[in-house]
Amino acid sequence: MVASGRDEKRLSEFARRFGFDHATTDWREAIARADVELVDICGPNHLHAEIVEAAARAGKAAFCEKPLARDLAEAKGMLRAVEEAGVPHMMCFNYRFFPAIRLARELIRDGALGEIRQFHALYLQDWGLDPGLPLSWRMRKELAGSGALGDTAVHIVDLARYLVGEIAEVAGMLTTFIKERPLPDGSGMGEVTVDDAAAFLARFASGATGVFETTRVAAGRKNFMHLEVNGARGSIRWNAEDPNVLEFYSLDDPPRVRGFRRIVVTEPEHPWTGNWWPPGHGLGYEHSFVHAVYELLAALGEGRPPEPSFRDGVAAQAVLEAAARAAEERQWLPIER
Amino acid sequence: MVASGRDEKRLSEFARRFGFDHATTDWREAIARADVELVDICGPNHLHAEIVEAAARAGKAAFCEKPLARDLAEAKGMLRAVEEAGVPHMMCFNYRFFPAIRLARELIRDGALGEIRQFHALYLQDWGLDPGLPLSWRMRKELAGSGALGDTAVHIVDLARYLVGEIAEVAGMLTTFIKERPLPDGSGMGEVTVDDAAAFLARFASGATGVFETTRVAAGRKNFMHLEVNGARGSIRWNAEDPNVLEFYSLDDPPRVRGFRRIVVTEPEHPWTGNWWPPGHGLGYEHSFVHAVYELLAALGEGRPPEPSFRDGVAAQAVLEAAARAAEERQWLPIER
Amino acid sequence: MVASGRDEKRLSEFARRFGFDHATTDWREAIARADVELVDICGPNHLHAEIVEAAARAGKAAFCEKPLARDLAEAKGMLRAVEEAGVPHMMCFNYRFFPAIRLARELIRDGALGEIRQFHALYLQDWGLDPGLPLSWRMRKELAGSGALGDTAVHIVDLARYLVGEIAEVAGMLTTFIKERPLPDGSGMGEVTVDDAAAFLARFASGATGVFETTRVAAGRKNFMHLEVNGARGSIRWNAEDPNVLEFYSLDDPPRVRGFRRIVVTEPEHPWTGNWWPPGHGLGYEHSFVHAVYELLAALGEGRPPEPSFRDGVAAQAVLEAAARAAEERQWLPIER
Amino acid sequence: MVASGRDEKRLSEFARRFGFDHATTDWREAIARADVELVDICGPNHLHAEIVEAAARAGKAAFCEKPLARDLAEAKGMLRAVEEAGVPHMMCFNYRFFPAIRLARELIRDGALGEIRQFHALYLQDWGLDPGLPLSWRMRKELAGSGALGDTAVHIVDLARYLVGEIAEVAGMLTTFIKERPLPDGSGMGEVTVDDAAAFLARFASGATGVFETTRVAAGRKNFMHLEVNGARGSIRWNAEDPNVLEFYSLDDPPRVRGFRRIVVTEPEHPWTGNWWPPGHGLGYEHSFVHAVYELLAALGEGRPPEPSFRDGVAAQAVLEAAARAAEERQWLPIER
Repeated sequence: MVASGRDEKRLSEFARRFGFDHATTDWREAIARADVELVDICGPNHLHAEIVEAAARAGKAAFCEKPLARDLAEAKGMLRAVEEAGVPHMMCFNYRFFPAIRLARELIRDGALGEIRQFHALYLQDWGLDPGLPLSWRMRKELAGSGALGDTAVHIVDLARYLVGEIAEVAGMLTTFIKERPLPDGSGMGEVTVDDAAAFLARFASGATGVFETTRVAAGRKNFMHLEVNGARGSIRWNAEDPNVLEFYSLDDPPRVRGFRRIVVTEPEHPWTGNWWPPGHGLGYEHSFVHAVYELLAALGEGRPPEPSFRDGVAAQAVLEAAARAAEERQWLPIER
Repeated sequence: MVASGRDEKRLSEFARRFGFDHATTDWREAIARADVELVDICGPNHLHAEIVEAAARAGKAAFCEKPLARDLAEAKGMLRAVEEAGVPHMMCFNYRFFPAIRLARELIRDGALGEIRQFHALYLQDWGLDPGLPLSWRMRKELAGSGALGDTAVHIVDLARYLVGEIAEVAGMLTTFIKERPLPDGSGMGEVTVDDAAAFLARFASGATGVFETTRVAAGRKNFMHLEVNGARGSIRWNAEDPNVLEFYSLDDPPRVRGFRRIVVTEPEHPWTGNWWPPGHGLGYEHSFVHAVYELLAALGEGRPPEPSFRDGVAAQAVLEAAARAAEERQWLPIER
Repeated sequence: MVASGRDEKRLSEFARRFGFDHATTDWREAIARADVELVDICGPNHLHAEIVEAAARAGKAAFCEKPLARDLAEAKGMLRAVEEAGVPHMMCFNYRFFPAIRLARELIRDGALGEIRQFHALYLQDWGLDPGLPLSWRMRKELAGSGALGDTAVHIVDLARYLVGEIAEVAGMLTTFIKERPLPDGSGMGEVTVDDAAAFLARFASGATGVFETTRVAAGRKNFMHLEVNGARGSIRWNAEDPNVLEFYSLDDPPRVRGFRRIVVTEPEHPWTGNWWPPGHGLGYEHSFVHAVYELLAALGEGRPPEPSFRDGVAAQAVLEAAARAAEERQWLPIER
Repeated sequence: MVASGRDEKRLSEFARRFGFDHATTDWREAIARADVELVDICGPNHLHAEIVEAAARAGKAAFCEKPLARDLAEAKGMLRAVEEAGVPHMMCFNYRFFPAIRLARELIRDGALGEIRQFHALYLQDWGLDPGLPLSWRMRKELAGSGALGDTAVHIVDLARYLVGEIAEVAGMLTTFIKERPLPDGSGMGEVTVDDAAAFLARFASGATGVFETTRVAAGRKNFMHLEVNGARGSIRWNAEDPNVLEFYSLDDPPRVRGFRRIVVTEPEHPWTGNWWPPGHGLGYEHSFVHAVYELLAALGEGRPPEPSFRDGVAAQAVLEAAARAAEERQWLPIER
């Protein structure tokens, strides 16, 4: 196992703590090693494409953090690279791997909500609220591609596709509330070139409607990702701040006892949870990554393509790109397929 | 309609605002009037017995605030008076008249929870927290009988009886945290002779267990009355700070979607609510009184005894008295029947 | 006091129950009476204009249900009528009159949230979910003007203006999921000509952003009106299903104990509540109307214009109209001022 | 690192998966090894004493699961053994190691709640609800010592001591609702000799009051551990089903904005959390164990006694024993010190 990073000192400390056999500040060297079969791309967005393409050329599987790329063209190039090379590829859309989200998907697939009509997602954080927070790569368009849109909206776009299906068109609004921030080197102020907040309306191919909103500057919201899906026969809700709970409403219940059920998704009947703690002893953030990696390794072991793939990464990117363009052009735009 | 009170000025203002035809500072005069058929007793606890007994002697129906009396002997005397006089009598246990509580009772009666095993009730307020609050009649044993026990525990005792059945025995603890308070006339400090907080364990005649707690000094709790009932097949929960919601858990649901349902009890299917607002537009505190008075008038009109009656008032008082004595004697004691 | 309605039998029953002195099926006759000073317009939307204009001509004050009119032109005509006649006028935007909303406004006005940046409102109901529900006036454009947009979005538009200020531009989406419904007379099916659901993005004149969504077909949602306002120094949230609670987050709190405070808005310090029940004993839906009427009568008594006025009704209508047109034209549109 | 267990096949699988160097079905052999310095006792309660005493004799540190022992006498013997041997000892009271609980303790220590008056804890589970669940060691007195009392009440007793201080006296109630269960070997039914549910009232040495309740048969409750502490200046609440949140109410807030703050305890300012995920990305059940083990290893490294020690284990056991005896004798009993 080889770790790669830019800062030699922090890298060697990291490698030691987490049991990597080797460490190198040259990621090309890591990919070139014969004993490396899989490359996990966790760097800033502007590095994703180059690393993925190198991994593909070297015949290595690629596991990539979200968003896949800075823009749609870059994302498509990456998909082309892994497909032409025939290497396995997977997006790290870790929110798909929360047991409550998996249960939501099962319920929707089984028809428990009937025809899906409305999807709403709010993803609110406040880490960008302090105007003294230095200008990092996440606030620079050339490095990140976009701001809250690519960083956090991408999760709810992926969940929307996972739960409801393809999005057909969008109208949007991007906003930068804090327009400049201190440069990290203390040399003055630098311009924030991405959005602090993004919102868009959507229509799914199925005719369902979607409302998406994300922000980095909602005071008091730490990792508030709230989803609701309404169908003709029922509804579900989920909030990442209380991740082990899925709420479910069903018209199949007798009228006098209808209500949103607060399902604590920690029972043996629930996805993955039987492998962890006793009922009621909740899973946390990191288990979503463990489940994602489990899917990756299981798929590789079984010789099947892991899910979600870079196709999902490209599809999400297409929605983000359309939302950004629609905001700029001040009109509804179709999603490129 | 005649209003009666001690302070002539405030009484006449009250009578005018609320449309009473007459007002008198002599409640005996009010009871004596030929056009009075029903007496509503809302005064301090130490006046309940005398007024009820006078009303009974005069052949008038009696509607009495909780607790019925300062102690069990007094309560029994009042019951005897109305029964011997053959006049209708009703306790104003208004919490029975919240739609969610009525629905809870229906579910329990219908067996939706199976055999009832456990009842828990917390009733927390904080109005007594300020040590500068003057010594009122509610803090003097000779006028109130007891403190939080008679004022607020009485509600959860009545609901326990309503939902689960008779209580057989108790062990308890009464506490006075703030032992003296300013006298209302500013002449110095006076001793608080009742409990600020009361807690007791109980066994119901059925074998179910009960845990009851109430307090006037729980910082931040305004009118937090939280009930939970657990049975062999399901559970229900209710909180008076969110009174239109009943939570219900049922083993009859399929395992993967079991969870407490948050039933918003404002639908046409629910008790009384069809007579009020559209679904979701909740009822408040006062509607419980309106429903109680509706029961009283409907029962009088139909010639049947209203419910709950003074028998329920006496039964609740017997529990309170046993809890107080058990606390004093530091042992479990049976409830007198 | 005169009641007016179309159905003679139901009208006379209504007048009797609620203590009206007179009743007439001809609203013109009611307005013409010398002893009528104030006209309360609660009929279907298509009747608002005619009645308001008649009241104005007769020199009577007008109190009108929301939305003011079916469209902006009609609303403007009504405003012109009352202003030219010099009669007092008030919109029944009752949600402004919940104590928690009033407290929210005070906090915002006092700067407790700092510069306001984001407003989000979801108003979800499900009364339209049943496809067998007959086609009522609320589902016909010529009678209602619009569907969820005018019926429920109007409330959150008014609250947005009340809390944050004027809206400058919008992009929107209207959807009719259930396209035909049984005619009330049983003669077959009729077309639904209004929206079941509406969503729009907005920019306020101040630069703040807004996301608005409403629907009649969100399974399980009875009267779920959820608001959140985020500023540079804090946030507030409110949900009409738990109306006595306002949540408030402040950066002024010490970092380790920052969190959304759940303020139970029933204390003597809070707007209006000292006139009602003891702390913690919540107010319900109807008190918002009582407070609105109190404002109306107090303003009339003091000779000042009541608030909100028909100007607010027109301003809200302008937003609705722009949202509907923006949805149709598939682009962002400015609000007409 | 050596693993020990009874079932050779499962043990060797376990040792392999979790990276143990050796495995043995003879725990005495494990303790005897020169390279073992610390013994982690996770077996059924009836084995704790023997293993701890052997570890102490061998000069090894002991880390023991709760409850320390089956009864007080056994617990005291274990404490004597480790103290006489001079070996480090720690109780695995993992709930002390949730960040929110640590923050609660800091707030109480800093006086944020003023004088502590009331402690309430409900710990409800439902894993025992199914009467078909076989009779395990947890339901047999000779192996477990007690039922819900030792298994789950022990956690809230420890937290009560941690947050409020020593308990002076108790009155209690133990109940076995399901009196026999299938034997694991299928040979018939066996008697349940421990409690399914336990409740007790308490007075702390400080004069504060306590109400404790735990059960294995509360339908719908998975791991619902709800704590509330009320003081003269404020209150705190915590629920293990939403473990990253601490609620805090303070009289130091201005009256109009007082309310329970929902503190999401995942910020850098909060205990331990800076070492884990970004703000809002919550910790789960297992992190409490990681923090406990961190304390153990840090204390060993620094040459100081780890906390909580077996003295805390004994103190908790004394409360459980008094609660059980008080229930049997039907009276209040002091805690043995």
